[in-house]
Amino acid sequence: METPDIIYGKNSILEALVANNREINKILISKNIHTDIKINKIKELAQQRGIVFQFVAKEKFQPYAEFNHQGVIAQISPIKYMDLDEFLESKNHFNSSLVILDGVEDSHNLGAIIRTCVCAGVDGIIIPSRRNVQVNSTVEKISAGAINYIPIIKVNSLVNAVQKLKDNNWWIIATDASAKDNYYDVKYNDMNFAIIMGAEHAGVSKSLLKASDFVVKIPMQNSFNSLNVSNALSAIIFETLRQKLINKK
Amino acid sequence: METPDIIYGKNSILEALVANNREINKILISKNIHTDIKINKIKELAQQRGIVFQFVAKEKFQPYAEFNHQGVIAQISPIKYMDLDEFLESKNHFNSSLVILDGVEDSHNLGAIIRTCVCAGVDGIIIPSRRNVQVNSTVEKISAGAINYIPIIKVNSLVNAVQKLKDNNWWIIATDASAKDNYYDVKYNDMNFAIIMGAEHAGVSKSLLKASDFVVKIPMQNSFNSLNVSNALSAIIFETLRQKLINKK
Repeated sequence: METPDIIYGKNSILEALVANNREINKILISKNIHTDIKINKIKELAQQRGIVFQFVAKEKFQPYAEFNHQGVIAQISPIKYMDLDEFLESKNHFNSSLVILDGVEDSHNLGAIIRTCVCAGVDGIIIPSRRNVQVNSTVEKISAGAINYIPIIKVNSLVNAVQKLKDNNWWIIATDASAKDNYYDVKYNDMNFAIIMGAEHAGVSKSLLKASDFVVKIPMQNSFNSLNVSNALSAIIFETLRQKLINKK
Repeated sequence: METPDIIYGKNSILEALVANNREINKILISKNIHTDIKINKIKELAQQRGIVFQFVAKEKFQPYAEFNHQGVIAQISPIKYMDLDEFLESKNHFNSSLVILDGVEDSHNLGAIIRTCVCAGVDGIIIPSRRNVQVNSTVEKISAGAINYIPIIKVNSLVNAVQKLKDNNWWIIATDASAKDNYYDVKYNDMNFAIIMGAEHAGVSKSLLKASDFVVKIPMQNSFNSLNVSNALSAIIFETLRQKLINKK
């Protein structure tokens, strides 16, 4: 039961409480779980914010059996997706970064990507409204609550979004296994840039590759060359951060 | 049913057939699945190697319902773990790299780490025989078959293993959130090195931190700073590769 309005697991709920930017309707805690530091912190924050929490019989968790809920779930308002215009107007962008996902289908991958982007200071993630996994309970769980710290920008057309970014002086970097340049050949400083990561199997679509300013690859060292999309992004995004940080020194 | 002698999913089985270094007893294919390029390739390779494959009713897959088996499973010899001595003697190590996992508990993380290590050309992965997830069906599936392309070295004591590596002129680099140096401050060229990644929650154990030549961190850009271990490793390991490749030019 993938619903956008249930989150589960201690970290997801704790981070939602800490971030405090979504409406939490109710928190259910199984009577059968051990109370630990995180559960106590959840109770404390819920009390401070006047959020109902109930201890319930474990049978109440039956509908969520497929999830690793750790005996705690919360009814929460779905995340608010952002418009691209809203994002572009939200602040004066300088040395900003975006990640664009073109057809990532796996909830685990989207959750891991969100987590990595937040740790690396990426300013937003763009997903298309179709042919890409949307934020659901699994994404929230795998993101370990990181979802509350980064705008998710939903657009109807990635091609139009990329064009709008270019019109606003953003540089577009797509990843493709057959690219000539390596991802670390690009200089990411002193510009706003967006990195496009492709679908697990099909890669970045042709129209987006064509619209990109740079196309880069990760150099593979083995005939087995199928890198997971979240791990590929991690390699690239932390390279952009490395360049920024050593440049600051 | 986590067993070390069943692998499931098209990629896992295909890669095991291609790598051809494990004994495959039998391949079961559900009568109900669409035959596609990968299934045809599995049949073709199985025939070439004289491996039995059977089309069976989907009920046969009931015991494996928890897995995303895609209608195909194989009975296979468990992977052969390598000894550290065997690894050290296996070739003349120069600019070689190892990843040491200290208490990684999650099968998904181990599978993703194996996949990343193979893509980045890491020479082996060391895991302790206790307090770390071992290679199981889920690890194999998530590794997408990469498991067949890298030695997994199992040791009784990580402290002893690290000492042995140091005695053999390997450099040891541990990761820790409170480290002073960033992972990219280390020069990884012209040496054999092992990177120690810690448990999802506890990090690298004190005794290993003490035994390490370098302790490094990934600089976090957010108060939410909990990077997934496979994504953290990806950032570091591709930085070591970047240094190697630009140095070669």
